[in-house]
Amino acid sequence: MSTTSTTLAPELAVSEWFNTPAPLTLAALRGRPVFIHSFQLLCPGCVSESIPQVQRIECIFGHTDLQVIGIHTVFEHHAAMSPVTLKAFLHEYRIKHPVGVDLSDERSDTPTTMQRFALRGTPSSILIGRDGSIAHQMFGVEEDLAVGARIAMALSARIPGLAGTAPSSGEDEGCSGGRCEVPSQLDAGRLARMS
Amino acid sequence: MSTTSTTLAPELAVSEWFNTPAPLTLAALRGRPVFIHSFQLLCPGCVSESIPQVQRIECIFGHTDLQVIGIHTVFEHHAAMSPVTLKAFLHEYRIKHPVGVDLSDERSDTPTTMQRFALRGTPSSILIGRDGSIAHQMFGVEEDLAVGARIAMALSARIPGLAGTAPSSGEDEGCSGGRCEVPSQLDAGRLARMS
Amino acid sequence: MSTTSTTLAPELAVSEWFNTPAPLTLAALRGRPVFIHSFQLLCPGCVSESIPQVQRIECIFGHTDLQVIGIHTVFEHHAAMSPVTLKAFLHEYRIKHPVGVDLSDERSDTPTTMQRFALRGTPSSILIGRDGSIAHQMFGVEEDLAVGARIAMALSARIPGLAGTAPSSGEDEGCSGGRCEVPSQLDAGRLARMS
Amino acid sequence: MSTTSTTLAPELAVSEWFNTPAPLTLAALRGRPVFIHSFQLLCPGCVSESIPQVQRIECIFGHTDLQVIGIHTVFEHHAAMSPVTLKAFLHEYRIKHPVGVDLSDERSDTPTTMQRFALRGTPSSILIGRDGSIAHQMFGVEEDLAVGARIAMALSARIPGLAGTAPSSGEDEGCSGGRCEVPSQLDAGRLARMS
Repeated sequence: MSTTSTTLAPELAVSEWFNTPAPLTLAALRGRPVFIHSFQLLCPGCVSESIPQVQRIECIFGHTDLQVIGIHTVFEHHAAMSPVTLKAFLHEYRIKHPVGVDLSDERSDTPTTMQRFALRGTPSSILIGRDGSIAHQMFGVEEDLAVGARIAMALSARIPGLAGTAPSSGEDEGCSGGRCEVPSQLDAGRLARMS
Repeated sequence: MSTTSTTLAPELAVSEWFNTPAPLTLAALRGRPVFIHSFQLLCPGCVSESIPQVQRIECIFGHTDLQVIGIHTVFEHHAAMSPVTLKAFLHEYRIKHPVGVDLSDERSDTPTTMQRFALRGTPSSILIGRDGSIAHQMFGVEEDLAVGARIAMALSARIPGLAGTAPSSGEDEGCSGGRCEVPSQLDAGRLARMS
Repeated sequence: MSTTSTTLAPELAVSEWFNTPAPLTLAALRGRPVFIHSFQLLCPGCVSESIPQVQRIECIFGHTDLQVIGIHTVFEHHAAMSPVTLKAFLHEYRIKHPVGVDLSDERSDTPTTMQRFALRGTPSSILIGRDGSIAHQMFGVEEDLAVGARIAMALSARIPGLAGTAPSSGEDEGCSGGRCEVPSQLDAGRLARMS
Repeated sequence: MSTTSTTLAPELAVSEWFNTPAPLTLAALRGRPVFIHSFQLLCPGCVSESIPQVQRIECIFGHTDLQVIGIHTVFEHHAAMSPVTLKAFLHEYRIKHPVGVDLSDERSDTPTTMQRFALRGTPSSILIGRDGSIAHQMFGVEEDLAVGARIAMALSARIPGLAGTAPSSGEDEGCSGGRCEVPSQLDAGRLARMS
């Protein structure tokens, strides 16, 4: 029994999922770090800055057990950013990770997940630790060096009382386009051993 | 009577206009050079490359009589790129120049203006000369240096039989954000004098 | 006999040339437009901004009779930027156009050509017209669109009393690296015909 | 007494230091992670890619006990890249961290430190762990996300038998230019606590 009390992150509230055969929940992902990207498809900063960063994260940390999730948190121009438009957007921008449509709230323009995490706007990012708590949350886009450092720390953190984390064995080498390379020493196995 | 026979560019076919109090036609614009930008709001190359270039063109040539026109030439994901979504897109990306929705053709996925100009995809650009003919047309994005050279040539070209072109006097100085400067020697008046 | 009196640009003062079998003078280049790039090899803005722009200019206007010239105008850290270092710099940065070392003046830190043109710093650029006058001069780096427009105007300008300019026929297609394309309608021949 | 045998990184061989009151050695830095940047001032990839990355590293990890060191590893154009030119280069590029001139070897064009680490060219980087061993070494420039992850791991690694690392308390907030922000959870104290 742990002496540390940790506040769990609130659960995602999603009305429709893309790029996943089954809905995702933070509860079911407990034990793995989760990087949540909150965006809107008509948000210029998302398209030019945060979506490319998320794709770099997938590339660099694709062989670890980090789970990347996008949440389409529409709080303006609701009719313009329907799931039909989102689906085409994900296709055109080659976004392959799971993306959920934030559950609308009839009493507010701000959807439910966005309210639960008190997000200030898009893009925002939330890093959930292996223990289910919020390791970091921010509005805007942080430098890659800092994001890489945070994710490495989240990957290396052991959960007290857990024997170890079995990362999925990644069999494919490198990232598409040859633009980046999976660092051999950054797999979750080694990260676990270092901690 | 001119001995040169020039083929006029086909006319635009537009079902709805944004950012203009009245519909535009190439016929009514005869005598001015026109830069037409063909795009789709979910086209990554348009968002990252050609739209920023069009905004630089507006900035650099804003004091000349060049007319910039966007045409939303949707040939895929039609339901995802409705005029409702386009309107929000123009707002979010701060696009201020006139944009027309290319007239759909019930017999084809390709809309009417796109067919008339035989455009191969998005982004495309068409430069119309003062005489109403196509000075240049291309699929993709050309280097700014070449685009600037083409527009300068189109601006400087006199129309045979016409006494001269009276450019609108631009009284505001510079472009927003201080990122570029209106070149003092690039106004249409001087261009006309040089030709 | 022209009624317009034009002030000729001052002549270059160069102590040593690279990338040319014989010294260049503006007098001998009369009839061709000349783009002069003033730089220092330890100037960060030159390395990151103006040198890449000059290389794009060479690429886009390589089939015209525009002459590109670099002048190494050292006005600080003289011992650090000797011709020995310049030679290695030109090699490493793959600069192929003629570059002259601005003639030092024992009474001043500012070298001679820099004084003659009253340049304020590096990078600077000077565009010389076919008639030998200064068409444009500036400190800093201008937008490619504006530079392209200026060069097109300089290329298209006829010299009063001259029958025509015979451009060298460029037989090779495109630029190295496939990064840009020689615009078919931007050759000097067509530019001359348009004017 | 540790059961793990670690091979120590070879020592630096430097003929002249800039930006430090006293010479640095890896031996004296034992207990702190060290990021070594091998560069040449006339290397285009160093100027455009690795030097900006090193400056971002200084910005993001400036409040930790990471030591950043540049080594000017000249293996070509020796006369062009003398310490006189290096000194002006460091001034112009605002490089503030300690930079050593790699000790020349009269029997080889390749200087001594470069030989000891078997570096293949410039830019190269070497990350030294708290225990003095090479955590990572590479030729070229790696993605910021991966570099950030590596540095975080190096910072968080405890040395067996050592009670703890006392980081210098950084009192200044943020980085120059306001372009990046010191992440509050990335200080060495917390990193030590997490491991």
